Amino acid sequence: MRTLTGLQPSGKLHLGNYFASIKPMIEKQNNSDDEMFIFVANYHAMTSLSDAKSLKANTLEAAAAFLSLGIDPQRSTFWVQSDIKDVLELYWILSQLTPMGLLERAHAYKDKVAKGLEAHHGLFSYPVLMAADILLFNAQKVPVGKDQIQHVEIARDLALKFNNAYGEIFTLPEAQVAQNVATVPGTDGAKMSKSYKNTIDIFSDAKTLKKQCSSIVTDSTPLEEPKDWQNCNIYAIAKLFLNEQEQANLQDRYSKGGEGYGHFKMYLNELTWNYFAPAREKFQYYMNNQNEIIDILHHGAKKAKKTSDEIMAKVRDAVGIY
Amino acid sequence: MRTLTGLQPSGKLHLGNYFASIKPMIEKQNNSDDEMFIFVANYHAMTSLSDAKSLKANTLEAAAAFLSLGIDPQRSTFWVQSDIKDVLELYWILSQLTPMGLLERAHAYKDKVAKGLEAHHGLFSYPVLMAADILLFNAQKVPVGKDQIQHVEIARDLALKFNNAYGEIFTLPEAQVAQNVATVPGTDGAKMSKSYKNTIDIFSDAKTLKKQCSSIVTDSTPLEEPKDWQNCNIYAIAKLFLNEQEQANLQDRYSKGGEGYGHFKMYLNELTWNYFAPAREKFQYYMNNQNEIIDILHHGAKKAKKTSDEIMAKVRDAVGIY
Repeated sequence: MRTLTGLQPSGKLHLGNYFASIKPMIEKQNNSDDEMFIFVANYHAMTSLSDAKSLKANTLEAAAAFLSLGIDPQRSTFWVQSDIKDVLELYWILSQLTPMGLLERAHAYKDKVAKGLEAHHGLFSYPVLMAADILLFNAQKVPVGKDQIQHVEIARDLALKFNNAYGEIFTLPEAQVAQNVATVPGTDGAKMSKSYKNTIDIFSDAKTLKKQCSSIVTDSTPLEEPKDWQNCNIYAIAKLFLNEQEQANLQDRYSKGGEGYGHFKMYLNELTWNYFAPAREKFQYYMNNQNEIIDILHHGAKKAKKTSDEIMAKVRDAVGIY
Repeated sequence: MRTLTGLQPSGKLHLGNYFASIKPMIEKQNNSDDEMFIFVANYHAMTSLSDAKSLKANTLEAAAAFLSLGIDPQRSTFWVQSDIKDVLELYWILSQLTPMGLLERAHAYKDKVAKGLEAHHGLFSYPVLMAADILLFNAQKVPVGKDQIQHVEIARDLALKFNNAYGEIFTLPEAQVAQNVATVPGTDGAKMSKSYKNTIDIFSDAKTLKKQCSSIVTDSTPLEEPKDWQNCNIYAIAKLFLNEQEQANLQDRYSKGGEGYGHFKMYLNELTWNYFAPAREKFQYYMNNQNEIIDILHHGAKKAKKTSDEIMAKVRDAVGIY
């Protein structure tokens, strides 16, 4: 089973990213026989990021972060999208099979434009590039959030259409929507998201992390009184780090009274700081040794190209690129 | 002055192609100091040709034909579009700067869809790829027909927009619409065009050429009577091969009477056959030695890449592709 994941190099990673998608991905890498193809989607990031410095920095930072958080370049195939330019040739080829109506109906494009992003051609044609990403490696499973299911279906449609026209070359991919994924609340109780500015970031320095934890919104129950862990944002975040016994212990502390929210915030601060200590150390190392990241990525691209070269040779022959 | 021309590998070339565009291009190559960049546009051809065998055959046949008709790979830089894949990366990059409205307003797309071509994404985004073709080589002049002026203007718009956003990297291209270009009538008197099935083809075998010349529509003036060369399709085609003296001689033969249209058709047949005899011989040679064409094209791509590599290095750095 080959699983493909594209990671957006969208700046600082937060606990929401970690518990909802990174942790499950790493667990799958370590505990399943799936063949994992994982890439940093810098071509895609261009559709919403026009600042060159940020794009370049985010690409390397994302690679460093994901490596630090557990992507193992031995077990997984890990590269940067722009290192395999064949994806753009496949994008052009698939474009000839993509009815305009299919793209015009894509929700994500309509949503982004509704939110005020400029309606440019890159944003519009994003699903075709995503289809190329998937089909270029004959990925069978594509773990995505609900908002991306339609894009995987587009990839599947295009694969079918291509196979019907030119012969069975592409595997039909399937979206894999994670069940039981933790919804991680942000510091204000809404879903943790960079755009809501309610995040607790994985690689914050000690001072920033403390500030982020302190900013969690609580009610004003006095220190000495029992507190309702079931309706507490601090608890809802902290429990993600805890096993059942530890969760029960924390619930007890809430119920007993005698500790203020400040104590629980401090506890969460410690939990986060300690949990990511090994990753933070690796991250620092990579950021100080960027050539090592680049070597790993190049090596990954070479590995991935073994698959894509074979597929593209068939595709070119099928469509008549001499 | 760098001039860029993209040639469609659209099957058999006819006298209309030759006198309206190929001949002026070859004359420019031989008699000006312009640096000529000429490529066979096989990626573009895919937007209207989904048959793989035809696309592959047409690509090589077009290359053989243009070489036979005078493209000199020493003087000009001559390659096949798909040999320089960077054009697709530039296409993606430019897509981020292309407002959807710009493409929605493109006449050629609307015309093609109105004529019944499927409205697919390749056709729609064609102008962005054409902009990439032009800007990838910093072409200054782009000789085009009137229907393509808008596309060169789109390329110019995108170059301006890119330069404003990222610094002066691209030359602003200009459409060069040939003046005084011969309009070549077809066998029925309408503009010679493959879609009207009224062509006389350059590399027809003797039998086909005779048939095509015989099919020219004339009036029914009897053999012995004087004929009106000013309103004769045969004359209108024949004069393209003739210098002034020869034209006057032919006019005389029309005015005198005593010769039928059959004689003039035979004369045109001979003119055409003889005019293209050296090219036909070369064409046959190339078609029997396709590896030689491929070598020439690869060599051309290598030459062209010296220019495009330099530009793409700047572009990648400017937009932040690591």
